[in-house]
Amino acid sequence: MSGNTFGTLYCVTSFGESHGPAYGGVVDGCPPGLELSAGDLQRELDRRKPGTSRHVTQRRESDTVEILSGVFEGRTTGTAIGFLVRNEDQRSKDYSAIAEKFRPGHADYTYTQKYGFRDPRGGGRASARETLVRVAAGAIAKKWLGERFGVRIRGCLAQLGPLVIPFESWDAVGNNAFFAPNAGLVPKLEAYMDQLRESGDSCGARVNVLAEKVPVGWGEPVYGRIDADIAAAMMSINAVKGVEIGAGFAAVAQRGSEHGDEMTPEGFLSNNNGGTLGGITSGQDLAISIALKPTSSIRIERRTVDLRGRPASVQTTGRHDPCVGIRATPIAEAMLACVLMDHALRQRAQCGDVAPPLQPIAARAPARKR
Amino acid sequence: MSGNTFGTLYCVTSFGESHGPAYGGVVDGCPPGLELSAGDLQRELDRRKPGTSRHVTQRRESDTVEILSGVFEGRTTGTAIGFLVRNEDQRSKDYSAIAEKFRPGHADYTYTQKYGFRDPRGGGRASARETLVRVAAGAIAKKWLGERFGVRIRGCLAQLGPLVIPFESWDAVGNNAFFAPNAGLVPKLEAYMDQLRESGDSCGARVNVLAEKVPVGWGEPVYGRIDADIAAAMMSINAVKGVEIGAGFAAVAQRGSEHGDEMTPEGFLSNNNGGTLGGITSGQDLAISIALKPTSSIRIERRTVDLRGRPASVQTTGRHDPCVGIRATPIAEAMLACVLMDHALRQRAQCGDVAPPLQPIAARAPARKR
Amino acid sequence: MSGNTFGTLYCVTSFGESHGPAYGGVVDGCPPGLELSAGDLQRELDRRKPGTSRHVTQRRESDTVEILSGVFEGRTTGTAIGFLVRNEDQRSKDYSAIAEKFRPGHADYTYTQKYGFRDPRGGGRASARETLVRVAAGAIAKKWLGERFGVRIRGCLAQLGPLVIPFESWDAVGNNAFFAPNAGLVPKLEAYMDQLRESGDSCGARVNVLAEKVPVGWGEPVYGRIDADIAAAMMSINAVKGVEIGAGFAAVAQRGSEHGDEMTPEGFLSNNNGGTLGGITSGQDLAISIALKPTSSIRIERRTVDLRGRPASVQTTGRHDPCVGIRATPIAEAMLACVLMDHALRQRAQCGDVAPPLQPIAARAPARKR
Amino acid sequence: MSGNTFGTLYCVTSFGESHGPAYGGVVDGCPPGLELSAGDLQRELDRRKPGTSRHVTQRRESDTVEILSGVFEGRTTGTAIGFLVRNEDQRSKDYSAIAEKFRPGHADYTYTQKYGFRDPRGGGRASARETLVRVAAGAIAKKWLGERFGVRIRGCLAQLGPLVIPFESWDAVGNNAFFAPNAGLVPKLEAYMDQLRESGDSCGARVNVLAEKVPVGWGEPVYGRIDADIAAAMMSINAVKGVEIGAGFAAVAQRGSEHGDEMTPEGFLSNNNGGTLGGITSGQDLAISIALKPTSSIRIERRTVDLRGRPASVQTTGRHDPCVGIRATPIAEAMLACVLMDHALRQRAQCGDVAPPLQPIAARAPARKR
Repeated sequence: MSGNTFGTLYCVTSFGESHGPAYGGVVDGCPPGLELSAGDLQRELDRRKPGTSRHVTQRRESDTVEILSGVFEGRTTGTAIGFLVRNEDQRSKDYSAIAEKFRPGHADYTYTQKYGFRDPRGGGRASARETLVRVAAGAIAKKWLGERFGVRIRGCLAQLGPLVIPFESWDAVGNNAFFAPNAGLVPKLEAYMDQLRESGDSCGARVNVLAEKVPVGWGEPVYGRIDADIAAAMMSINAVKGVEIGAGFAAVAQRGSEHGDEMTPEGFLSNNNGGTLGGITSGQDLAISIALKPTSSIRIERRTVDLRGRPASVQTTGRHDPCVGIRATPIAEAMLACVLMDHALRQRAQCGDVAPPLQPIAARAPARKR
Repeated sequence: MSGNTFGTLYCVTSFGESHGPAYGGVVDGCPPGLELSAGDLQRELDRRKPGTSRHVTQRRESDTVEILSGVFEGRTTGTAIGFLVRNEDQRSKDYSAIAEKFRPGHADYTYTQKYGFRDPRGGGRASARETLVRVAAGAIAKKWLGERFGVRIRGCLAQLGPLVIPFESWDAVGNNAFFAPNAGLVPKLEAYMDQLRESGDSCGARVNVLAEKVPVGWGEPVYGRIDADIAAAMMSINAVKGVEIGAGFAAVAQRGSEHGDEMTPEGFLSNNNGGTLGGITSGQDLAISIALKPTSSIRIERRTVDLRGRPASVQTTGRHDPCVGIRATPIAEAMLACVLMDHALRQRAQCGDVAPPLQPIAARAPARKR
Repeated sequence: MSGNTFGTLYCVTSFGESHGPAYGGVVDGCPPGLELSAGDLQRELDRRKPGTSRHVTQRRESDTVEILSGVFEGRTTGTAIGFLVRNEDQRSKDYSAIAEKFRPGHADYTYTQKYGFRDPRGGGRASARETLVRVAAGAIAKKWLGERFGVRIRGCLAQLGPLVIPFESWDAVGNNAFFAPNAGLVPKLEAYMDQLRESGDSCGARVNVLAEKVPVGWGEPVYGRIDADIAAAMMSINAVKGVEIGAGFAAVAQRGSEHGDEMTPEGFLSNNNGGTLGGITSGQDLAISIALKPTSSIRIERRTVDLRGRPASVQTTGRHDPCVGIRATPIAEAMLACVLMDHALRQRAQCGDVAPPLQPIAARAPARKR
Repeated sequence: MSGNTFGTLYCVTSFGESHGPAYGGVVDGCPPGLELSAGDLQRELDRRKPGTSRHVTQRRESDTVEILSGVFEGRTTGTAIGFLVRNEDQRSKDYSAIAEKFRPGHADYTYTQKYGFRDPRGGGRASARETLVRVAAGAIAKKWLGERFGVRIRGCLAQLGPLVIPFESWDAVGNNAFFAPNAGLVPKLEAYMDQLRESGDSCGARVNVLAEKVPVGWGEPVYGRIDADIAAAMMSINAVKGVEIGAGFAAVAQRGSEHGDEMTPEGFLSNNNGGTLGGITSGQDLAISIALKPTSSIRIERRTVDLRGRPASVQTTGRHDPCVGIRATPIAEAMLACVLMDHALRQRAQCGDVAPPLQPIAARAPARKR
């Protein structure tokens, strides 16, 4: 399988470039009979859309999605679902200056060396605009998982540059431009971003994602572990440099007597494992955390080389997110949804006849809120 | 593709249980003409082998590997390489006590609920003993990568429970039971482990792995990113709860002007990206760090439920590693080697005709040593 | 990998239904640097297009293709190539009559039973119109194979219903509506089709495809044999019921002394094996022959059941090819091209360093012309 | 996925060479809870075993299989099932004569050119002895399909060289060395084989395979058609040059009014489609027919070239089947079983919630007996 498709049974194939005619995707393997309309995809796409606040890129895109196949009279037919989003606000001239140089920290250099040349317009295929395909595919998975199993997938911003964002409530998340779960902190985040933008610099972020009501038993040992597939899905998102599940790196300093989540008939007493044991979901909440690096396209001048390898300096003036992490929440949710759906299908393929011998243990302990 | 195979072109298939007759694997896709003997695999297996110090499990296994196919007159033929390691020291009676209960933090519970029942002997398929298959497969990849491209893959222990291990030198790594890159710290690590073992508890660990001299251009956007495949490979190792590439979670608090690695004709000036930009290797050192949780099989009594869901308590007395992270270094190296080899083959499949337009930029900056 | 994608490295993903908004596809894994325009795809699509003679369906479609990604300034970039063909002449009302009944020999019944319901408009996903995606993907493969290796892929109609078409010349193929390699026979074929159409019935066909100048060494034992992948590719074409390679079923009655193609320094003396030995190309012409069944949508009344399982009779009046085999030649060529390209890439992935020890033996013997 | 694994969910990985230490395989994806012992595999292996009559190779192998994993207390656990068959009767010296030359019609030449050299002992990886892995994997699939769905898979020899074998009864099949469904014809087959063996030549064969009681709905449009996967599976068997489903090549000369199988509430009235419509099983018997070429290793002297490309002549004296088709019946059955099981799992993955709207139509019409 080549690099633009992922999933074993719920398969997503993606195409498109930042300043080409369109982005699109194909979702293959969706069960038949799911009620689905373009609106279901649009709702999620609108959460990720550029230009919704002054803190993200000002590129003007409606990101209007069209479903081209796989849905008949409002229900999925079981055949491949093709969808399309036309690009509307290409300004390729913005990029003529950087076509001859490599941005430090950007994929400019590696694409050029790998493929012999590159589409420099807006990062071409390396643009984070590709994530809209993931969000659309994830919207379908979210819907099916919710209707079929009651699974709920939610994410939020946990840290913006140096600012840790204590979790207060899910309600706050939808009411600010940052997906921050803490209404009181929003002014501080805005002030930070205003200052950052003015400085011409960018910053990193941490995003947490949670899947609740995931049944026990999804995931395939030993390489097809659900946490392995989640790690791949998250690390495949532009700018992600780290992935944690459950206690994550905090597990290094834990003792076994602290880390191992005790069980009682009433439920697990903690959730250090983040919802997966041995690569199989435990019925606890799946708790993922990812690190996103700062955007590489900044206005600050930096040392680099040009296309002939000569010393140069570069600064990037186009329209860029000063923190790609701000819009990453719906993307991370979507990737988690796709992986879960893939494993839901794989689980019933192999173990569709199995009745779990125990009443599943309740997911009593909430996942760590950082 | 089902869960016990990984890789697209360099494919590793694994089988075996802790107390079954044998472990084995099939490596498919290895180029022909590579000099290979059982000794090449054995050398790496011996690094991972149990019983080599008092700090790891005392199970007595020679882990002797037999190559069953794919090698003729000392060279790989291009056909599937089958290999086998017989289990020698099964003591299944050790596990009768825990067969009826679930160990907190162990896959006991999820295997039982997924498959309807489980092989309780030594963790069955969930045992970390399975990693010997990875080490054998990785030994072949390491050898080919070294001979063909000069790639060198090395790892070390970066933290043992609460003890951070400052990097001093690679030379130290082979001379202690911990793969610690710091000879002076070894007595402290030994004392810590002795005390831990006595307490009946276990601890977590951090392991770093580095691949040097990786050519620019390996990895496939957008889902087939090399860092995505590395993340999956690492997270598929037993007990791993977090994966970082380059700056990892430290990137959250960095600014773009700090994180983006500047380039000069003489080389990159830093390596925050850890050797990959846009999912494609940059020619810098690939720098990976993983978190391993504490072993779940401990002598300390803990609350749990039994096979009928009734409250119970459990303590595990068999032979277990008090810190699985201690033997994880060769495993992490092996997984990285397999992913790199897979992408080396994928790269020449698609881009075998491409001449990189630039002289590759030197990997001047060393990767972060934590 | 789900059902709408095929290929390991040259991956084609397809979507679309006969009376939906559009068909489209994604070609992933194409090497960078190939000159490519929509015209390259259009040329092949025009060969398959409906409405080009009275002997095929009269549906009016321009089948105009748009390339949406993966090409920059006239060359492939190495990223996913998305393309789209809008449907223009949907007349869904034509199908209201058959929505309630199953056509004998049609996928109506199996789609309904598998998915719970179906898109009845023009066969929905089961329509042979889907093959335009294959033709577009094959056009790219054909171009690359031709430029990179000099491979030439050609097909022709070998039998129309009961009429065997003796091979005369490739020149004839492009000059008649049947892809018949025999100009003198065309009036007879036309007369046969006119009579058939009048009768309201349909007929089967045999199509031969040949790939010349295929290098020795493509194909992967044991399950990844190139002939196995070709067989799958051909059998996946609508209406195909049989596939032969080389001597095919004639090999049953042959003796080994007759079948085994003798070799001399000047070349093979025959080509019973049809270009593949042990699943690996031999350097001889790859010679494939396929059987296509008669169209199931006919005007003749037939016994069937309706959606509730009650006895019914059905006749189909819409616009249908009375012989799907007539337009199958470019489709079969395309599928062969895709498989060859996939294996060309796989071969250099694994064996890119191998120098074949012998000067390849010439493909002196022409493939069997039936 | 590399060439020695096949299947999407029921995955079989194979390794081994004719004169290496052992053959083995890994079956991944088998549902848990299936009763399974080595005896279940052995029973099928014994049907394929060499040396059971004077008409097949006289190599003496017990083909004793050992299950190494995936089964606990007599039931499959859901983890990978590894199995091993040691080679016992290697006589590598037999092959020294042919190591320097290429047998016409044999994979000697293509392996050498692809990989740079080859294991010449008994055909190495190209030996038909590899098919024992398929038979073992198929035995598991057969058992599960039978117990879970009542599916029954049977095959027989339909033609031996020029001798067509009219189908008389399944009872006859197990009572002769040929898997011939016609007891009265056995003396004629024996006489033919005795004469053939004496002549030093070999002959081809046709084998038919039938799967009864296959539920409606297995198979995935458009490339994952069950007939496409069956075609690949069959064509991947050594020596197979043609595959037919249902009417096969006879469909070419049929009219639609004859070919399309009419339906009544009591059942289908014919089975020209061979159990699949649109790539999805129809509930009728799956009817497959394959052509096997004559063995290439014959005692008759033939023209060839040697390892340096110089003219030579070759005759093969070792122990060979004069007709590989004779032992092909259990192999073809096994491959069909593996494909069916794969699709049974895929079907419930995607469509596990679908209730087929119609009472399935009975498979009243028997498949064509040739």
